[in-house]
Amino acid sequence: MQKHILIVPGDGIGAEVTAVGKQVLEAIAAKFNHQFTYDEALIGHVAIEATGSALPNETLTKMRAADAVLFGAVGHPKYDNDPSAKVRPEQGLLQMRKELGLYANLRPIKLFDELLEASSIKPEILRGADILFFRELTGDVYFGEKKRSEDRNMASDLMVYQRYEIERIAVKAYEAARTRRGKLCSVDKANVLESSRLWREVVQEVALRYPDVETEHQFVDAAAMLLIKDPKKFDVVVTGNLFGDILTDEASQIAGSMGMLASASVGDSTGVYEPIHGSAHDITGKGVANPLASVLSVALLLDISFGLKAESEAVIAAVDAVLKAGYRTRDIANANTPADKLLGTYQMGEQVLRHL
Amino acid sequence: MQKHILIVPGDGIGAEVTAVGKQVLEAIAAKFNHQFTYDEALIGHVAIEATGSALPNETLTKMRAADAVLFGAVGHPKYDNDPSAKVRPEQGLLQMRKELGLYANLRPIKLFDELLEASSIKPEILRGADILFFRELTGDVYFGEKKRSEDRNMASDLMVYQRYEIERIAVKAYEAARTRRGKLCSVDKANVLESSRLWREVVQEVALRYPDVETEHQFVDAAAMLLIKDPKKFDVVVTGNLFGDILTDEASQIAGSMGMLASASVGDSTGVYEPIHGSAHDITGKGVANPLASVLSVALLLDISFGLKAESEAVIAAVDAVLKAGYRTRDIANANTPADKLLGTYQMGEQVLRHL
Ligand SMILES: CC(C)[C@H](C(=O)O)[C@@H](O)C(=O)O
Ligand SMILES: CC(C)[C@H](C(=O)O)[C@@H](O)C(=O)O
Repeated sequence: MQKHILIVPGDGIGAEVTAVGKQVLEAIAAKFNHQFTYDEALIGHVAIEATGSALPNETLTKMRAADAVLFGAVGHPKYDNDPSAKVRPEQGLLQMRKELGLYANLRPIKLFDELLEASSIKPEILRGADILFFRELTGDVYFGEKKRSEDRNMASDLMVYQRYEIERIAVKAYEAARTRRGKLCSVDKANVLESSRLWREVVQEVALRYPDVETEHQFVDAAAMLLIKDPKKFDVVVTGNLFGDILTDEASQIAGSMGMLASASVGDSTGVYEPIHGSAHDITGKGVANPLASVLSVALLLDISFGLKAESEAVIAAVDAVLKAGYRTRDIANANTPADKLLGTYQMGEQVLRHL
Repeated sequence: MQKHILIVPGDGIGAEVTAVGKQVLEAIAAKFNHQFTYDEALIGHVAIEATGSALPNETLTKMRAADAVLFGAVGHPKYDNDPSAKVRPEQGLLQMRKELGLYANLRPIKLFDELLEASSIKPEILRGADILFFRELTGDVYFGEKKRSEDRNMASDLMVYQRYEIERIAVKAYEAARTRRGKLCSVDKANVLESSRLWREVVQEVALRYPDVETEHQFVDAAAMLLIKDPKKFDVVVTGNLFGDILTDEASQIAGSMGMLASASVGDSTGVYEPIHGSAHDITGKGVANPLASVLSVALLLDISFGLKAESEAVIAAVDAVLKAGYRTRDIANANTPADKLLGTYQMGEQVLRHL
């Protein structure tokens, strides 16, 4: 198979982890006899520094031309405590999602058995948990109109959904539920929000087309609680952009560490694959970041954008083998991890390659 | 001391748990020689059934006249899956908060040592966790303008904050942080939302007046993750209405069960005290609901509205003693709870009274 992959490292640890991801792509191409070609492009803070824009036109053009994008992270602490900054790294990310029509963000939450102890949640609560989140990614309060009053004393964001936006993500979630355990939980705040009432209305309608899937509705506050209390009760979860942002970060604790979680953003054109963790400037350049979320993003990319199931499974099996062999990065290590099994970003990548 | 207390049971298990709360108030009055008088009023689904309104005028008048309100819960499943319902129980709750100017919702999250095992989180992660949430309660997307397009295909809610709304809740949170461990974490989504950028701006300004308090800002997604990963890192948390709703329900897992958590809503006039749990129609009328959140709401009421510290501590000590004696309601029991220690709502109330 011939494919062109765009690597977009972005900010902070993005460069370190996508470098490992790319090595894994190369190893898969060699092993399974594919022709993968690569290019690179800028986004986020590094793009602002180089071009003044968080998403340069050149990057967008390259993304549209690629068969898939392997993405790192965006963000820089310099903007976080400066509420008046006009250009922000995150704008690049949001604009990319909108421009590429990436309306469905898939976040699989599954614990590797070897990491049962790495979580703050009890093993008996976690064992067997396996959730697939569908987070709507191009609507909601993220993209509604933003306003600041002239005297600067009032600020607002419009939380808004349209029927077709809800319907298309619901359909994707139901289709996935069919291939899994046949359960779907839709999360909203319909007891308070009009946009959530539309959300629930549309999901109820789509549900009629999938009588084989068991549908449940939860309010977002209850869902945030139940995810920790009883994660095994969930199969597919579908929710809006903001609630999805919060719930999937929370759910990362089910997987032991955020450093293990990959996501796929798909929609109208090129799919984008990225860790759910951020740019983590506190550890940038230290070579200690966990590259496995980027490696698992590669697994999603191979499966979803290229339909290469065996290749995807080989990547996941390699990660599993590395963990079984006892290798850990700092974030998933514990007091019992021997010093010679505690690896940096690059060495962890080497272990994955060795097990491929 | 002479005080007039309005009991507002509301819906579902509200009646069962506030009945126990009232008994505790009576016992405290007798023991400490106070004159408490009581009245009752309707809210929520029961009020809609009786009067057509979720917050009848009579209830509001009685609330204004009272020295404090002991509240149960509102909600009914009949409305949850009917996005078109015009009158809803929750409207009564939201209108009450607005009308009484209850802009600060305090939710203390503290684990009774005896319940370490009841949580899904590991004991070593939990031990020592003690968080006080300040949730803004009369602004945000809860009260911003709601719209539905004429063709019903688009729905929106305005997420909006004004400077003074943020400032007054921040001041309350900082004042509390001073009397605790001197740490405050403000939670927003300032990397995406304009209303959050105003939030952060104002909190940064208020912070300058409290140089003795250590301030930290977290994005809501990171906060949702950190609460589970390392709850001990938090002291006072201040956040908006929607994020506060989600994070405090999630944090209930830190306290072992939602059935243990009380809240105080204070502001311009009468304070309202209530469990953070809902109306729980699945167990209504069965006599199994945990009344301790209502009992602990009484402790908050005595302390915050009446300034009766010793009385408040006596209530908390009684709850502690009951738990130490091994008594449990279903929600906080485990496989090792002997059958004769497993109590219903009323019996649990009796044990609290006995230990007072
Ligand atoms: C960086 C930020 C804008 C982004 C989001 O909120 O969507 C991130 O948290 C994510 O989940 O991808
Ligand atoms: C019932 C509902 C409207 C309410 C809220 O969202 O505020 C509840 O969840 C709460 O936290 O008091």
